[in-house]
Amino acid sequence: MRDLSTDTSLLSLNTATVKQQWNLEQMIDGCVRHRIGAISPWRDQVEACGLGEAAARIRDAGLRVSGLCRGGMFPAADAAGLQANIDDNRRAIDEAVTLGAECLVLVVGGLPEGSRDIARAREQVFDGMSAILEHARSNQMPLAIEPLHPMYAAERACVNTMQQALDICDRLGDGTGVALDVYHVWWDPDLEAQIARAGQQGQLLAYHVCDWLIPTRDLLLDRGMMGDGVIELKKIRGWVEAAGYDGCCEVEIFSSLDWWKKDPDDVLATCVERHQNVV
Amino acid sequence: MRDLSTDTSLLSLNTATVKQQWNLEQMIDGCVRHRIGAISPWRDQVEACGLGEAAARIRDAGLRVSGLCRGGMFPAADAAGLQANIDDNRRAIDEAVTLGAECLVLVVGGLPEGSRDIARAREQVFDGMSAILEHARSNQMPLAIEPLHPMYAAERACVNTMQQALDICDRLGDGTGVALDVYHVWWDPDLEAQIARAGQQGQLLAYHVCDWLIPTRDLLLDRGMMGDGVIELKKIRGWVEAAGYDGCCEVEIFSSLDWWKKDPDDVLATCVERHQNVV
Repeated sequence: MRDLSTDTSLLSLNTATVKQQWNLEQMIDGCVRHRIGAISPWRDQVEACGLGEAAARIRDAGLRVSGLCRGGMFPAADAAGLQANIDDNRRAIDEAVTLGAECLVLVVGGLPEGSRDIARAREQVFDGMSAILEHARSNQMPLAIEPLHPMYAAERACVNTMQQALDICDRLGDGTGVALDVYHVWWDPDLEAQIARAGQQGQLLAYHVCDWLIPTRDLLLDRGMMGDGVIELKKIRGWVEAAGYDGCCEVEIFSSLDWWKKDPDDVLATCVERHQNVV
Repeated sequence: MRDLSTDTSLLSLNTATVKQQWNLEQMIDGCVRHRIGAISPWRDQVEACGLGEAAARIRDAGLRVSGLCRGGMFPAADAAGLQANIDDNRRAIDEAVTLGAECLVLVVGGLPEGSRDIARAREQVFDGMSAILEHARSNQMPLAIEPLHPMYAAERACVNTMQQALDICDRLGDGTGVALDVYHVWWDPDLEAQIARAGQQGQLLAYHVCDWLIPTRDLLLDRGMMGDGVIELKKIRGWVEAAGYDGCCEVEIFSSLDWWKKDPDDVLATCVERHQNVV
């Protein structure tokens, strides 16, 4: 077992954490300056920088790429829409390969506009992943389903628990797994068992941290810095390490009310300090 | 099977729905005026009216009492706090008996202030329910755990799925069951199976409806009127009826942004219309 919190080379910056303050070039430089060993960029930031330029800068900076955010968003109102989403996911795989990402994170998508049929949305997620799986496998790019908190079931992701995500992975087979973000799953009474299950089958592909604030003032943009909320970060990290995970620990904080307003160098310094002390 | 939506005698008004506009006396009169056959009052409203007076008025109005809201809130920082919560739940049972309620709804409680230990909070819920169970049984007052949406795990209820609630009921035995509120569980991929399980064991004690809005602007006070959101109300009602439930269909809408600002007679008329057409 490797202790995820004592090694800043295993700390990863999900670039959403400072998205209001910096562009990708600045984020890469920031990681180097704060000795953060990895980065997990978002596709829009990569596009703004230019894919080749982004890949070169990250490589030259010596950063690991713990994941590319994000593929997914499969459900659509009709077959043409689903196909368009599948095509976009193929491009996301190609981008992840160019960047040297360790996985493509999938936020699978919620209900198509006007639909209430969540069972159908879930079928479309399976169908969409099935359609891109060979492309992912042939490029050695693991697909990491990120189960999102149930409060996002309608609008962002109809896969909402580790069990549900792992059941999909079991059906799809090799080349699939989960991105575990504590924010989405900390409440789950079955979390320890599902982490162990994922570990046994090599399906734990990424580990994201932040915190759940009391009170939470916004459904989407009020995530907390590690240590400022109620998530038992050390306990969950223990479960993840016991399951054999030895990858990066990625900080992903959406916080329009707080961290997005701060000096990004202060944000990164805080991430490093909290990673060492409370994660 | 009984069709819950065609019989307004089975429609129940959870009084939270018009709590900003009316006191309990006005709510009772409103139910009679709109031919709503049942009511589910909150304890603070009952106290404001006076317990005996409230019971008499509800009885004289010919209303069923589909539940009393609410017991629960067990977890505490220390043993004295837990005991105080247990004592309060005994009083809630007595009040439910006086009102002729069909169950005491339990919102079980979240983390005690300053605690992150959700496993311990869950143990305290079990211990607290164990401590009141004989009192509930001897008074023939069923205890209905209401699993709350995972977004309330920290602050309101550490029991967050039907499966988790039913597992507790199985351990406790006779006199316990669940209050199913679609708002809290609609997203659960295991919902149909857990409803069937509850039905087989006579554990389905109450059925609450409202809707999940897109977007949801507030974690607590932005519930929608049935039909205005994305919950598949008819599908879930079908599962509930197939499980043998023939009790009331209770409307419970927390809506500081919308329904709490409207004329309460319009709110009740809308509840009746939606109950007949979309629930």
